[in-house]
Amino acid sequence: MKRPFPLSKVYSLLESGPVIMVSTAYKGRNNVMTMSWHTMIDFNPPLVGCVISDRNYTFGLVKKTRQCVISIPTLEIAKTAVACGNVSGRKTDKFAAFGLTPVKAAQVGAPLIKECYANLECELADARLSGKYNLFIFKVVKAWVDTSKKHPKAIHHRGGEEFMVSGPTIKISSKMA
Amino acid sequence: MKRPFPLSKVYSLLESGPVIMVSTAYKGRNNVMTMSWHTMIDFNPPLVGCVISDRNYTFGLVKKTRQCVISIPTLEIAKTAVACGNVSGRKTDKFAAFGLTPVKAAQVGAPLIKECYANLECELADARLSGKYNLFIFKVVKAWVDTSKKHPKAIHHRGGEEFMVSGPTIKISSKMA
Repeated sequence: MKRPFPLSKVYSLLESGPVIMVSTAYKGRNNVMTMSWHTMIDFNPPLVGCVISDRNYTFGLVKKTRQCVISIPTLEIAKTAVACGNVSGRKTDKFAAFGLTPVKAAQVGAPLIKECYANLECELADARLSGKYNLFIFKVVKAWVDTSKKHPKAIHHRGGEEFMVSGPTIKISSKMA
Repeated sequence: MKRPFPLSKVYSLLESGPVIMVSTAYKGRNNVMTMSWHTMIDFNPPLVGCVISDRNYTFGLVKKTRQCVISIPTLEIAKTAVACGNVSGRKTDKFAAFGLTPVKAAQVGAPLIKECYANLECELADARLSGKYNLFIFKVVKAWVDTSKKHPKAIHHRGGEEFMVSGPTIKISSKMA
């Protein structure tokens, strides 16, 4: 049900601040982490800034492979997404442990996550600030979205155990990006 | 009604991705812009990354003054907040034009916005990526929050004229930041 999604519209998936899942693959082994510290940096090609702590297993995997997939989970799998953020991939195969289905990506080695409504295939564009700020800048090279979900209920971290679920969508005349 | 808010908890205000308003002051004149491209970078002191286009008047004001205030509007003033993003401060006094009330900050020259439920006084910490990515890293030096609003309805840009209004808060056991 997922279709290719225009790269020029990727910003609309991420700008509202959803919790995202970042998957990687290294030496035949998949991994995934869950995080919230990201921002759009540019429209097209879409650049996304992600803060990935150097204490996270994913930090080294991104440095080595220079690729990842950013996936957006919805309320239906919120507990699974958050649980993925509570354990390290160093010792756990999280795809197996949490019943997530890796799907082969078109342009990168990291896997899409079938259970997420959107998947963004990314190449590492700039790691200059990964030393000082744990900040990686990714370029989205291919996007997949389940377009049958018009306004999917993403989750948004409020800190600690609190997550806000996407509420109603309103229209306000805007020239904002 | 606004009280000082612990700097170590500032992340919980911004991590969910609300639309924010960035105010500046230069040569006795206040300005404000509205934007959505921001992310937490670190906890304490809180560092916030903001993408401010070099086409925006605010870009030069931040470079010159190295200060700003980040304010978080709620649904009650959503139209005003978005309208502020639709005109440039080069020719318009937006505080006057949109009925916003500037309030003197404690540690920076830029004004707080009375009508917003949270105000974060910021100093520019790193402008190294402002050339290539329009990315500024700010350090929050003082935070004010109307703590009578437990889960205020922020707005979150979905692209174009669409904004998502904060929905219900749920609890999921999390070790996420």
